[in-house]
Amino acid sequence: MARYDFASDNTAPATPEAMAALAEANTGFASGYGSDPGSARAADLVRAMLDADAEVRFVASGTAAHTISLAAPCRPFESVLAHHHAHVCTDETGAPGLFGHGLGLTPLAGASGKIAPAALAEPLGAPDVSYRQPVAALSLTNATEYGTVYSTAELAALTAPVKAKGYGVHLDGARLANAAAAGFDVKAIAGLGVDILVVGGTKAGMPPTEAVVIFDRALARRFDARLKQAGQLPSKGRFYAAPFIGMLQDGALDRHAAHANAMATRLAAAMPFKVAHPVQANGVFVEMDEARLRALHASGWFVYRFLDGSVRFMCSWATTAEAVDELGEALRRIA
Amino acid sequence: MARYDFASDNTAPATPEAMAALAEANTGFASGYGSDPGSARAADLVRAMLDADAEVRFVASGTAAHTISLAAPCRPFESVLAHHHAHVCTDETGAPGLFGHGLGLTPLAGASGKIAPAALAEPLGAPDVSYRQPVAALSLTNATEYGTVYSTAELAALTAPVKAKGYGVHLDGARLANAAAAGFDVKAIAGLGVDILVVGGTKAGMPPTEAVVIFDRALARRFDARLKQAGQLPSKGRFYAAPFIGMLQDGALDRHAAHANAMATRLAAAMPFKVAHPVQANGVFVEMDEARLRALHASGWFVYRFLDGSVRFMCSWATTAEAVDELGEALRRIA
Amino acid sequence: MARYDFASDNTAPATPEAMAALAEANTGFASGYGSDPGSARAADLVRAMLDADAEVRFVASGTAAHTISLAAPCRPFESVLAHHHAHVCTDETGAPGLFGHGLGLTPLAGASGKIAPAALAEPLGAPDVSYRQPVAALSLTNATEYGTVYSTAELAALTAPVKAKGYGVHLDGARLANAAAAGFDVKAIAGLGVDILVVGGTKAGMPPTEAVVIFDRALARRFDARLKQAGQLPSKGRFYAAPFIGMLQDGALDRHAAHANAMATRLAAAMPFKVAHPVQANGVFVEMDEARLRALHASGWFVYRFLDGSVRFMCSWATTAEAVDELGEALRRIA
Amino acid sequence: MARYDFASDNTAPATPEAMAALAEANTGFASGYGSDPGSARAADLVRAMLDADAEVRFVASGTAAHTISLAAPCRPFESVLAHHHAHVCTDETGAPGLFGHGLGLTPLAGASGKIAPAALAEPLGAPDVSYRQPVAALSLTNATEYGTVYSTAELAALTAPVKAKGYGVHLDGARLANAAAAGFDVKAIAGLGVDILVVGGTKAGMPPTEAVVIFDRALARRFDARLKQAGQLPSKGRFYAAPFIGMLQDGALDRHAAHANAMATRLAAAMPFKVAHPVQANGVFVEMDEARLRALHASGWFVYRFLDGSVRFMCSWATTAEAVDELGEALRRIA
Repeated sequence: MARYDFASDNTAPATPEAMAALAEANTGFASGYGSDPGSARAADLVRAMLDADAEVRFVASGTAAHTISLAAPCRPFESVLAHHHAHVCTDETGAPGLFGHGLGLTPLAGASGKIAPAALAEPLGAPDVSYRQPVAALSLTNATEYGTVYSTAELAALTAPVKAKGYGVHLDGARLANAAAAGFDVKAIAGLGVDILVVGGTKAGMPPTEAVVIFDRALARRFDARLKQAGQLPSKGRFYAAPFIGMLQDGALDRHAAHANAMATRLAAAMPFKVAHPVQANGVFVEMDEARLRALHASGWFVYRFLDGSVRFMCSWATTAEAVDELGEALRRIA
Repeated sequence: MARYDFASDNTAPATPEAMAALAEANTGFASGYGSDPGSARAADLVRAMLDADAEVRFVASGTAAHTISLAAPCRPFESVLAHHHAHVCTDETGAPGLFGHGLGLTPLAGASGKIAPAALAEPLGAPDVSYRQPVAALSLTNATEYGTVYSTAELAALTAPVKAKGYGVHLDGARLANAAAAGFDVKAIAGLGVDILVVGGTKAGMPPTEAVVIFDRALARRFDARLKQAGQLPSKGRFYAAPFIGMLQDGALDRHAAHANAMATRLAAAMPFKVAHPVQANGVFVEMDEARLRALHASGWFVYRFLDGSVRFMCSWATTAEAVDELGEALRRIA
Repeated sequence: MARYDFASDNTAPATPEAMAALAEANTGFASGYGSDPGSARAADLVRAMLDADAEVRFVASGTAAHTISLAAPCRPFESVLAHHHAHVCTDETGAPGLFGHGLGLTPLAGASGKIAPAALAEPLGAPDVSYRQPVAALSLTNATEYGTVYSTAELAALTAPVKAKGYGVHLDGARLANAAAAGFDVKAIAGLGVDILVVGGTKAGMPPTEAVVIFDRALARRFDARLKQAGQLPSKGRFYAAPFIGMLQDGALDRHAAHANAMATRLAAAMPFKVAHPVQANGVFVEMDEARLRALHASGWFVYRFLDGSVRFMCSWATTAEAVDELGEALRRIA
Repeated sequence: MARYDFASDNTAPATPEAMAALAEANTGFASGYGSDPGSARAADLVRAMLDADAEVRFVASGTAAHTISLAAPCRPFESVLAHHHAHVCTDETGAPGLFGHGLGLTPLAGASGKIAPAALAEPLGAPDVSYRQPVAALSLTNATEYGTVYSTAELAALTAPVKAKGYGVHLDGARLANAAAAGFDVKAIAGLGVDILVVGGTKAGMPPTEAVVIFDRALARRFDARLKQAGQLPSKGRFYAAPFIGMLQDGALDRHAAHANAMATRLAAAMPFKVAHPVQANGVFVEMDEARLRALHASGWFVYRFLDGSVRFMCSWATTAEAVDELGEALRRIA
C-alpha cells in the first residue's frame, strides 16, 4: 500500500474543525442554492478575513472556480496572462477553453513559479491584431505552484501595469492559507486590484469547497446564473459553506496552514537531495533522478515528478512530524 | 422564519447513514481523483444495486452530471429529445448548451411529466436537414419531475424506437430511489438500452453527490478527462463516494426513499386542494390560486408554483408525519 | 429539372451590379482582413444608407453574422428574446448556442412573424432566478420571416421597454432591402436603440456577403478578433465589400428589392389559394394541403412548406413576371 | 501607398479562370446549401485531383475550415498535435478552442515548419492522465508556413505512428497547390491516412473558398449540420464551388502555383539577405534586422516579420517578374 502523505495536499482528510461544522450545519431544512443562513455567515467570515466588501460564493470545484473566474472578466476571443506552469495552464485539461468558450492562455516565464515582472511588458505592449487573442486579464497564484510566496509588493508590481491597461486580475488562492501563514497579508488583496479571488478550501484541509470572492461588483452581476449554468451552484449550499465556518471562526485555517508550512520546513531541513526552489509554503521540490524516484516509489512513498523536472513533496495540515522523519530516512537510504 | 420542509427534496439535511460514512471515510491519506478505495467500493455498490457491469463516477453537481451525460453520446450540432418540462429543459440555465457546446434540446409533450410514446414518432421519423439539429439521444427522468413513475414497460416503449435508430439514451435518476421505492425495478435499467444514467444522491438525502453510471463502454473512454475539463473530477473523491457507501451498504437508500414516498401519500390524503398528478413518488402537485399560495407563504410554509401552474410539495427522508399534519392543517385553513 | 425560382430568395444568381463591382474590385494587390480601400468605401455607403455613425464589417455568412451579433451583447448564461419562428430560433442548427457558447433563446409569440408587444411583458418583468437564463437582448427581423414589415412605430414599441431595462437589441436585416422597398425607413434604425444590425446582401441579390453594423461602439471593441475567432474575418475582404458597393452606389439595392416585392404582389394577385399573411415584402404564404403541394412539386415548381404550415413562395430580384404568370397557371391547374 | 504584393498570398486578386467560372455559374436559379449542380461538379474535380473517393464541401473561411476539421475527429477534452508555428497554433485567435469547444493544441518542434518525427514520440507515448488533454489527432500543413514542402515519405513517417494509435490526421492544404507544384503528389494523400483535408482556394488565387475533403466517411456523417451550425454552409453554394471548377477543369491551379513558386525562386536568387529556410514553394524568409525592415517599409514594400523572427516574402499567381526585380532592387538598396 503506497503512502500518499506527500503526494499532494489534497490527499489529506478534512480537519476536525471542518467536519464538526459540517455536522453542525446538517440540521433542519434550509433553503437552497446559497440562500441558506450558513452560506451568509461563511461569506461574512471570508469578508472579515480579507477585510473587504465583496460578493462570496461557495462552489465544489477548484478547476471550475478558477476557470469561471478567468471567464468572467474576459471574452472568448481574448486571452489570460499566466505563469507558464500555473495550474490553469498545465493541469486543468483545457477547462479554461471550455468554461471560457475558447478563451486563450498566454504563458509567461518566471523563476520558481513567480511571473517575472519583465515578462509582462511584451504582451501588455503588443498592439491588438485580429489574428491573436488580445490580453484581457492576468492570473496570479499565491502561494505558487512551486511553494513560493509572492509579497504584496511583488504582486503590486504585476497587477499595477495590468490594471493600468484596464484589464482584469484573478488570484488563484488554492493555497492562500499557506501564503498567509508564510507572512502574506490577505487583507492587502483588495487593494492590489484583484477583481476575483478563489480562496481554496480543499487543499487547506476542508471537504471539497472553494470560495469565489468577487471584488469587482460589475463581475458579480448574474453570477449565480453563471455558476448554475456551469454546474457550480450547489443546491445544498450549506455543505460548501460549513467547512469555511469551521475553519474561519476560530483561526483553524491559519493554524493548520502554519503546521503544513512547518512540516515542509522540517522536511527541507532533513532533505538529502538538492532543494530546487525556496521553501516558503507547504511544498518541497528537489532534484532527483529517475532511478532514485523509482526507488522511493518502491519504498512505499508516492510523490510526483513536477513540471520543471523536480520531484515534489507536499505537506498538509495532516502531515505528522513522524511521517516527515520517516520519509527523511527513506530519502537518505536512496540518496 | 419560513419553513422549507416541502419546498424541495434538497432542503433536507443529509441522512445519518451518509454522514456516518463521510466521517468514516475521513481518515488517513487517500489518492485523488477517484482512485481511492472508497470510490472503488461505492462503484461496486452502485453496480450491485443495478445488477450491471458499468463504469461509475461520483461527481458534485446534478446539473453538470446530467448535461455532461447528454453531451457524451451527442455532438454539438445534434439534439436531445426530452420531456418539455424535464429539468434539463427548464431549470439548468442553459447548461446543456454549455457542456454540450451548443447541443440542442427537442421538447416532447406528455401528461404528468411522462413522454407520450406517440410524441417520438415525428422527431425520430424526420429526415436529417442541415438547418435543424438532428436527434442523437433521448433523455428520460424517473421518477419524473411531476412525481410520477415510469414502469419498465413504459420506458421500454420509449427506448426501443430510439435504440433502433442507433441513438443514445440518458436516464436522469435524480429521484431514482423514489422510483425504486414506488416499485420500479432498477435492475432493469441496463436491459432497457440506457447508455448513461445519473443516480441522484443529493435529493435522496446525501451531501452533494451524484453517481454517473456509464453502461456504454465506448462512452466511458477518457471520461475522467471529460469530467476534469468540466470541473467534475473531484480531487478528494472519497467525499462524493462515501455517502453512497453509507446509503447503499445496508439499504438506507431504499428505506429513506420509501419514507419520503409515504409522506407524500400522507400529504395527498390530507390535501384539501385538487391533486393535479398521480402521487407515485415523493411529490404532491395541487391546483391552488395565487391568493391561496400567498396565504400559505404568509403562514410560514414556503413552496413553489411549478411549470404547469400547479403548486408543488416535495417530501424527503427528513419529512416528518408531524410536519405533514401541520402543513395539512395550514392548507385546510386557507382552502 | 425542378425550378427553384420561388423556393427561396437565395436561389437567385447575383445581380449584374454586384458582379460588376466584384470584377472591378478584382484588380491589383490589396491589404487583408477588411483593411482594404474597398471595405472602407462599402462601409461608408452602408453608413450613408442608414444615416448613422457605426462600425461596419463584411462577413460571409448570415448564420454567423446573426449569431455573433446575438452573442456580442450577451453572456452565455443569458438569453435572447426572439419571435418563436425567427430564423435564429428555427433554422440555424443551434448556431446561437455555438457562437453564443450556450446562450439561450426565449421564443415569443405574435401573428405573421411579428412579436406581439404584449409578449414582452412577462419575460421583461420576470425576476432573475439562478436556474433560468435571464434576458439580455431582443432580436427583431425586418422584413419578417413571413413577409410582413414592421413600421418604425411598431419596432419602437418593442425596443423601448427592452432598452429601458438596459438590454441589447439586434436587428436581423436579411431582407432589410425588402422592408425598405415596402416603406420602412432604414434611417430610423439607429434611433430605435438597435445596437447591432445585419444588413443582408445574399438574399438581396449579392454573392454571399452580409454587413454587420455595430451602432453601440462598446460592442465594437476587439470585434475583428471576435470575427476572426469565429471564422468571419475574410482575408480577401474586398470580395465581401464589393457587392455592397455595386448595390449601394447607385440605388440598385432599392430597385431590385422593389422589383422582388412587386413580383410577390403580382403572385398574390394571381394566387388561387388563400393567402395566409399580409403580402408586404417579397414572400407569399398560402394555405395548401399536402396533396396539392405534391402536385405542385410534380409540376416542376419546388417550394417549401413553412413553419406555420403554410406554403411559402419567395420572390427575388431575378424573379420574372413571366415566371410569376407561369407559376400562377400551374397553381390554378392544381387548385 | 504601400505595395502588398509580397505581404501575403492573399493580397492578390482572383485569377481570370476563377472569375470566369464565377460569372458562368451566375446564371439561373439554383438550389441551395451545396445541393446545386456546380457544387457537385466541383466536388468531382477535387476527387479527381486527389484520385480519391471522399466527401467534399466548399466553405468560405480557412480559419473555420481547419478548426472544424480539427474538431471533427476530436472531443473537447482532447488535444491536437501540431507544429508550434502552424497557423492553427499561432494565427487563428483561438478558433480551435471555439469550434473545438475547448479542444487543446499540443505544439511540436521542428525546423523550417516541418514537425520533427522524433517530436511525436513523447506525446504519443504519454499515458492518459485526467488532468491533461490526451492526443486525438495530428494536424499537418503542406506546403508549410515556412515555404517548405513535405515529401510523401516525410508525411508517412508522421502519420504512421499517429494512425497506429487510432488517432485522426488533418492536413492543412491552404498551399497544397504550391506543394504540388513543388513535386508533392496530391494523389498520395488518401493513402497516407489523412482523414480530413482542406484544399485552399483563397491563397491559390480564388475568391474566398476552401474545399473540405473528408476521407473518413464516419466523420462525414451529418457534416452539413456541423457546417451549418458553424456558419459554413453557404446558401449560395455555387459561389464557393465555381472558383474550383475554373481552376481545376483545365489545370489553372497547377499553372498558377508553379508561377508563384517560380517567383519565389527568382526572389531568393536576387535576395541580398540571408535566406532562413529552404525555398521550396512560394515563400522566401530572410534574416533582416529591424532598421532594415523599417527602411523596406519606408520604401513602400509592406511585408511581415514572421514567427521565427525572419522576414517573410510571399509570392502568388499574380506576382510579376517585374515586381520581383523591383523588390530585389529595393532590398539591395537597404542591405
